[in-house]
Amino acid sequence: MLNFTFSNTTKIVFGRGVEEQAGKEAAKWGKKVMLHYGGGHIVRSGLKDRVVKSLQEAGLEIVEFGGAQPNPRLSLVREGIELARREKVDLILAVGGGSAIDSAKAIGIGVPYDGDVWDFFAGKADAKESLPLGVVLTIPAAGSEASNSAVVTNEDGWLKVGYGSLVLRPKFALLNPELTFSLPAYQTACGVADMMAHIMERYFTREKDVGFGDHLCEAALRSIIQEAPVAIAEPENYGARANIMWASTVAHNDILGVGRSEDWASHNIEHELSAIYDIAHGAGLAIVFPAWMKYVYKQDPDRFVQFAVRVFGVEQDFHNPERTILEGIRRLEDFFRRIGLPVTLADAGIPADRLEEMAKKATAGDTRKLGSFMPLGQEDVLAIYKLCAGQA
Amino acid sequence: MLNFTFSNTTKIVFGRGVEEQAGKEAAKWGKKVMLHYGGGHIVRSGLKDRVVKSLQEAGLEIVEFGGAQPNPRLSLVREGIELARREKVDLILAVGGGSAIDSAKAIGIGVPYDGDVWDFFAGKADAKESLPLGVVLTIPAAGSEASNSAVVTNEDGWLKVGYGSLVLRPKFALLNPELTFSLPAYQTACGVADMMAHIMERYFTREKDVGFGDHLCEAALRSIIQEAPVAIAEPENYGARANIMWASTVAHNDILGVGRSEDWASHNIEHELSAIYDIAHGAGLAIVFPAWMKYVYKQDPDRFVQFAVRVFGVEQDFHNPERTILEGIRRLEDFFRRIGLPVTLADAGIPADRLEEMAKKATAGDTRKLGSFMPLGQEDVLAIYKLCAGQA
Repeated sequence: MLNFTFSNTTKIVFGRGVEEQAGKEAAKWGKKVMLHYGGGHIVRSGLKDRVVKSLQEAGLEIVEFGGAQPNPRLSLVREGIELARREKVDLILAVGGGSAIDSAKAIGIGVPYDGDVWDFFAGKADAKESLPLGVVLTIPAAGSEASNSAVVTNEDGWLKVGYGSLVLRPKFALLNPELTFSLPAYQTACGVADMMAHIMERYFTREKDVGFGDHLCEAALRSIIQEAPVAIAEPENYGARANIMWASTVAHNDILGVGRSEDWASHNIEHELSAIYDIAHGAGLAIVFPAWMKYVYKQDPDRFVQFAVRVFGVEQDFHNPERTILEGIRRLEDFFRRIGLPVTLADAGIPADRLEEMAKKATAGDTRKLGSFMPLGQEDVLAIYKLCAGQA
Repeated sequence: MLNFTFSNTTKIVFGRGVEEQAGKEAAKWGKKVMLHYGGGHIVRSGLKDRVVKSLQEAGLEIVEFGGAQPNPRLSLVREGIELARREKVDLILAVGGGSAIDSAKAIGIGVPYDGDVWDFFAGKADAKESLPLGVVLTIPAAGSEASNSAVVTNEDGWLKVGYGSLVLRPKFALLNPELTFSLPAYQTACGVADMMAHIMERYFTREKDVGFGDHLCEAALRSIIQEAPVAIAEPENYGARANIMWASTVAHNDILGVGRSEDWASHNIEHELSAIYDIAHGAGLAIVFPAWMKYVYKQDPDRFVQFAVRVFGVEQDFHNPERTILEGIRRLEDFFRRIGLPVTLADAGIPADRLEEMAKKATAGDTRKLGSFMPLGQEDVLAIYKLCAGQA
């Protein structure tokens, strides 16, 4: 087990009606709040009005900033930074899913920074501070509500890049599972794949002696696998929605990843897909992760046997580890298919004609390796894209 | 699932050599630190000297306060409060296990309080603030290093009482598994029983729709059950020691208990044993918990079947739940025995002649019920003590 520091300071307020505490929690961090959200359903459902009312009742002044969208764009972030500076807001409240939260996070570190906010994502600067950030979560998926990271897409070259820093952790997050009752089945499934991927990026490590974390990761995966079909079949099942919502937070708040090197190759490989094709991140992960597994399992077969047996209850073939491993991967694909996700590029209607280009971009022309379980160069990533395309 | 708030602000620094960061972390909270510890091994092993050196190098002034002991006494707490006030210390650094931490916690809330510190434990006052508290952990067991509670024994009547408040959470905790290499097998085992009990007090709930938390609890238990015999057989096995140390923190930092009513009857029943007989808390729990399970399982057999199957891998008898349940309890007892713990009062050399007295005291003369899984009155508690004594 590696040495580690764990400090997760986000206050989680969880349960029915908790969005009505937005004003009370926000008022602890200032008087003027930027309300950042996507629009559409959040407005139509009346959620925005409820949050505004709560903020007003707590005496807060509100600066509205809508327009958050999937795979949040740098241009929107820059616009938000300008607005926040001009209006001198004290804090940001993001209402929505990972996209609204991530653009709010980028705005939060951009406001007090003299240079261009992209510097952080380009690895040219480290964020020293952020405006305080609160969250009303509507989509359990990204785990951004308690994570120390954000992902932004730079339209100049369609670079989708993540940045991590402790200052990115939200101060508070309000999680009401009822707000997810109206999530369509496909979006629910994409969220499920995203949170499972967050756990698996941590689970697949070469670090030894991390049994406690392994057990927790496997348990979290099993629970999600159990609850997801229930939430999809019964969208207003509070228990299933609640377990999934809490799982999405725990999957990415670091408690499952301490003491080990994490991987994150699959996320980077997927980012190229969603940057070019604007496929939902979770759907992209459902395609990439099984392909990644098929490509890398020989590096540490024992871990993949453990995954198959403990997560999917595969009856172990003690004489043929490969059979056990491949059965585990197949069950992961079957699970994704069952909840309505694509597991090949063709399933998602994505042509296989830009694989070289994506492999080159993902590895910056073979100058950076992806992942730590097996560091992947351009040829490796291309091979994984080919597996995504069903090409052996 | 119940509504909940989760906020765990303790910064965990984990790994080899981290006690040398004591000065750096403590200096964030003040200039004058009270160093609270037990003595004996902490002094002989050189740990105290290393911590003192680290504090001195960070420019801190040190006020020494030794004398921490198992089942920490109120008189010691009062003495510490006097000293801390007289010396005007800014923070307290506890070096040791749950006892040193708990007396430091009680001192921490006692110093800024006008009345008597026992008021908090007697339910007469709520702590508004505490001196900042840091921890160098030497015994993985109590989980007090990141918990919001403390237990103190009042020698006037030998009342052992817990108090919980968010202000009791330490600011930082330094966890070096190497410091536990020298823990004797029996003390290691007692710690293991204590952390397992912390998980089981949360696991055995009547709350429905807490599947995600159930899975995490079961995983944590399985991991501890796997690592404990290794740590006992190979005291210097870093991996086993590290997994157990981290498990002790997670077991009690609330992540496993959110969204559910917790029980804690077994802890209260055990407190009478350790208050009177000064048996190690973990050993007492190894006696009480299986007895409690035998007494209450009929209230929700399904949960006990789930425990047997998922935690101990009992082959389920689908036609006879009781057989499955009792096999699960038997395996828990077998595990405790295997790691050298008592599972009956006789095993621990405790006579069965004060059972009525303890049952009366635990329930305050039948005026308070213990636990929430099955609220227990004086007669119930007496029956459980009798089960501890092997009397059916």
